[in-house]
Amino acid sequence: MSEIHHQRVEALRAVMAGRGWDAVVISGSDPHSSEYPAPRWKQVEWLSGFTGEAGDLVVTRDHAGLWTDSRYFIQAVSELEGSGIVLHKTRVPDAVGIPQWLASNARTVALDGTCFTADAVREIEEALFSAEDDPEEELSVSGIRKRPEVVDVPDLLDVIWNERPDIPRTPVTTLDEDTTGESRLQKIVWLRKFLMKENCDCILLTALDEIAWLLNVRGQDIEYNPLVISYLLVTLDDVFWYVKKGSDLPEDPDTVDSETEIRADGVTICRYDALADGLLQAGGAGRIYVDPATLNHSVYSLVSDSFDEKDIISGPSPVILRKAVKNAVEIAGMKEAFHVDGIAMERFLFWLDTALASGQKITEWDASLKLTSLRAEIPGYRGNSFCNISAYGHNAALPHYSTPEHGSSVIEPQGLYLTDSGGQYLFGTTDITRTVPVGECSLLEKEDYTIVLKGMIALSRAVFPKGTAGCQLDVLAREPLWKLRRNFGHGTGHGLGFYLCVHEGPQDIRQNFNRQPLLPGMVTSDEPGIYREGQHGIRHENILLCMEAGRSGFGEWFRFETLTLCHIDTAPVLKDLMTADEIEWLNSYNRHVYETLSPDLPQEVSEWLRGKSMPI
Amino acid sequence: MSEIHHQRVEALRAVMAGRGWDAVVISGSDPHSSEYPAPRWKQVEWLSGFTGEAGDLVVTRDHAGLWTDSRYFIQAVSELEGSGIVLHKTRVPDAVGIPQWLASNARTVALDGTCFTADAVREIEEALFSAEDDPEEELSVSGIRKRPEVVDVPDLLDVIWNERPDIPRTPVTTLDEDTTGESRLQKIVWLRKFLMKENCDCILLTALDEIAWLLNVRGQDIEYNPLVISYLLVTLDDVFWYVKKGSDLPEDPDTVDSETEIRADGVTICRYDALADGLLQAGGAGRIYVDPATLNHSVYSLVSDSFDEKDIISGPSPVILRKAVKNAVEIAGMKEAFHVDGIAMERFLFWLDTALASGQKITEWDASLKLTSLRAEIPGYRGNSFCNISAYGHNAALPHYSTPEHGSSVIEPQGLYLTDSGGQYLFGTTDITRTVPVGECSLLEKEDYTIVLKGMIALSRAVFPKGTAGCQLDVLAREPLWKLRRNFGHGTGHGLGFYLCVHEGPQDIRQNFNRQPLLPGMVTSDEPGIYREGQHGIRHENILLCMEAGRSGFGEWFRFETLTLCHIDTAPVLKDLMTADEIEWLNSYNRHVYETLSPDLPQEVSEWLRGKSMPI
Repeated sequence: MSEIHHQRVEALRAVMAGRGWDAVVISGSDPHSSEYPAPRWKQVEWLSGFTGEAGDLVVTRDHAGLWTDSRYFIQAVSELEGSGIVLHKTRVPDAVGIPQWLASNARTVALDGTCFTADAVREIEEALFSAEDDPEEELSVSGIRKRPEVVDVPDLLDVIWNERPDIPRTPVTTLDEDTTGESRLQKIVWLRKFLMKENCDCILLTALDEIAWLLNVRGQDIEYNPLVISYLLVTLDDVFWYVKKGSDLPEDPDTVDSETEIRADGVTICRYDALADGLLQAGGAGRIYVDPATLNHSVYSLVSDSFDEKDIISGPSPVILRKAVKNAVEIAGMKEAFHVDGIAMERFLFWLDTALASGQKITEWDASLKLTSLRAEIPGYRGNSFCNISAYGHNAALPHYSTPEHGSSVIEPQGLYLTDSGGQYLFGTTDITRTVPVGECSLLEKEDYTIVLKGMIALSRAVFPKGTAGCQLDVLAREPLWKLRRNFGHGTGHGLGFYLCVHEGPQDIRQNFNRQPLLPGMVTSDEPGIYREGQHGIRHENILLCMEAGRSGFGEWFRFETLTLCHIDTAPVLKDLMTADEIEWLNSYNRHVYETLSPDLPQEVSEWLRGKSMPI
Repeated sequence: MSEIHHQRVEALRAVMAGRGWDAVVISGSDPHSSEYPAPRWKQVEWLSGFTGEAGDLVVTRDHAGLWTDSRYFIQAVSELEGSGIVLHKTRVPDAVGIPQWLASNARTVALDGTCFTADAVREIEEALFSAEDDPEEELSVSGIRKRPEVVDVPDLLDVIWNERPDIPRTPVTTLDEDTTGESRLQKIVWLRKFLMKENCDCILLTALDEIAWLLNVRGQDIEYNPLVISYLLVTLDDVFWYVKKGSDLPEDPDTVDSETEIRADGVTICRYDALADGLLQAGGAGRIYVDPATLNHSVYSLVSDSFDEKDIISGPSPVILRKAVKNAVEIAGMKEAFHVDGIAMERFLFWLDTALASGQKITEWDASLKLTSLRAEIPGYRGNSFCNISAYGHNAALPHYSTPEHGSSVIEPQGLYLTDSGGQYLFGTTDITRTVPVGECSLLEKEDYTIVLKGMIALSRAVFPKGTAGCQLDVLAREPLWKLRRNFGHGTGHGLGFYLCVHEGPQDIRQNFNRQPLLPGMVTSDEPGIYREGQHGIRHENILLCMEAGRSGFGEWFRFETLTLCHIDTAPVLKDLMTADEIEWLNSYNRHVYETLSPDLPQEVSEWLRGKSMPI
């Protein structure tokens, strides 16, 4: 594998030499700042072999480096072996970021501006220009002092990437008001009110889940994320959706189902590559609102070409917060999703339990396939919401363990098995982690299991005043671990979309100072864990819906309702470490799961679950 | 009272008319951004009669307003009655701040620039200038459109304030290394290293507790705060202390004790009003470091006159963090302070208990005097660290209740009495709140008492990883209250100085997003409460020392040690609301208090305390 990547890097260097570039930066993202890019934009993987979800590459004449964070250090070292590509650690003390590194190693830097935010490119430019003050700077090959420059080269890798996948164009489906609770037209009207309030004439949406939410459309352009790769320009009078990627030939149609329905709502369907023209036209119209957090550099340049600088209003897209606060119909859908998802989970755990008890040899991969097949039986299932994590023993100590198709571990009748997975349904998105005993557990495993559970329970039972942000609650999930000097290195909770991305903002529950208050209707995960390299990994994850909890003389109050329906195994619980309240919560949760799901479970599963959900 | 204030406002208006000012802004602070100003700078009180600790005044031709926050709304309304001065609420939704208000009501604004930070004046200027764009602006009296202007008038009130107190000049004493753990010279050397690291040539300190800490000096220029009003300029070679306020006549000396000692350490003692000259001289020397958070506008102007803008480096003073992290000697001193302070507190609570039991009539004021007299018996006592709060019944529902000398409430044999007080000792500063039953308590009082106690205990038992900030722990003290939809509107904890200010930064424990991590050696209060207007107020306050708590496979850990030594009354505790751990903590704390203090208590107090600290 590494030889092919070495060759690709060399091919890129040949291009660089021809064009006079000192360095090329390759982004791990796509033109829409997506968390998971489509294969076309898996440029880092194609060039380096690194498959982690976060990482950027820099190639110079004599160096090639991958910048990634601690989640992927081990994976990067293994995947980059022999490629000649060096790991640069980010988010560690004294880390040197790409802009700073480039400043001391290059003057002409090429990148595909569609895959970087405008801010990211500006940071690189500023680093290069500030380095110019340095009198000891290196001269270029030709001996002539070059002016620092960032060259924006669209589809930079095309010249060496022969079989590069096309921009995806999967069928687009629409969701009706009965499913989403709000029509496309209502959402557009709401967005126009926002524009009027902001004294703007149009807004450009480039984040794919925002577009899907606003238009009530879903696609399959990106694995796990039911999105349609496109741009959306909403003006006070028109809506332009830049989505068509096919040629105009009859044999090469774009499949936008219900195109008539969408057009009837006043949406003009345009070619994906026609955004520049659209912006130019809108430019005469006055002021544009854009969100710099997701806007890519190339599109930002188009916006700058079409609008006066004073007419470009930057701010967070209003869609983000509105989308996060689920309406009553979406909440009902999410509850249904967690109900059917819980049935699949209980059937899966029953299968695992009985198969292992009968001495069957089951690998992590087998288990993952089984779970997916059970979800696939559910009407309305549209795929998984992310890649199943199916991890036995010490594999579970990698929070982002990727189960290999070949050679995955056999689940032995000892210790713990962790499964983190979720489904996309037409009526909601799920995400759940359960860690279950598959045999005898050590005292340390039981202790870790119990205190992580205490953390998850503490957060889910929180009551808090209006205005409280997730970071102000985060410690509730950690303190039971901290008391024993244990901890976990990831966030405690992320937002979940409604039949959209499994990770969405603006809220979260983590130690970072995110000021976004939790609001009724927001859906957020609660997933503390403990990871011991070479030993075991434990995570319990329920999904919480933020609810109103009345007023008192001290103000307005919110609390959580747990949406997840799947029992928590009590066998590894050390009762002595639990308070009476926590035991009561656990027993009542398991009873609730049993009572809610058992009518819909096969009888043998229902009976098994009754045993599993007995009070302790 | 209000008539005199009305006259003073009118006198000011006469001055304004003569000078052509549309508005005058009077700050509640002094030239050193002190929390408590000396009488000379109690300008807001002199002009308006308002005695709250936070409030600024604006006077125009036809309006006079006091801007203050919710802590003082009730007090302000009562104290301003009849003065014609209107309350403007700050920190409420849609609050209009002074800059915005001035922008629509004035063009020429006069203020004493020594009593505002440079940032505050800039904010007013920006508001005035942005209002200038408004075509509908009002014309001045003369009908001529005036350019907006902020006029800096030092000692603006002098012309109408005949008996205005002088700048205080109380005796200055020095502390030796045995008391502070670090000599003046060591601290100066450390500060110079900071300057070299920052590539600066000098630093200007204007905050009084920073100067007192660095020079190991204490004074009594400000009530409750053992400070010396002065400025300090530290260069790489010299130290200039601008402190002398007397004339040069022999009969009018400034009393800086141990002047020789201070001079021997290379400190040049200068006149308080000679700072301008000092800065001018230093201006030739290069780059100056200043802290804009405390630097006043007038001094900032002096700095700007003396240094190129590019040579003025703004940042937080390094003294703040260094001062907050107590060294071993300071910690030993603080422990001693809490020991002797605990003895005074126990003697006080014994006296209160027995006096009330014997049917004596005791007012809040009597109790306050008694407590002070008991503290005053302690060798090394240098005064109280703030104004005693001595509050019975519903008076305690005002978190900042000020006990009146005349007509304070009689403590009846029913409900709860709250005392919040502290001492200044040569070896440390204390602060403690106890709420004690003085008779039968209602169920609600007991519930509130118990859950506030649960909150205090939860925070004091916290274990947390290195890097944790106070705001990430704050919820621990609140969640037991939140569970019952109760809350308190103030911070949970503030830093404490070492024989310095009872409130100091940079750390705190509150909901605000203060990123400063808690560090071993920091001393912070833990004081949740519940306040019910017209009913009762409860607060429990212990002081916590942040300590190292070892390493684990998950990193480095910190915890708290409780410094406060005074029993917590168990009578109002509802045991059913407490966990086993909390009861264990309470019993063990009370036992520890008894065992530690009893050898030093009069026998009758010791016996009484033994009863009070019995396990529940």
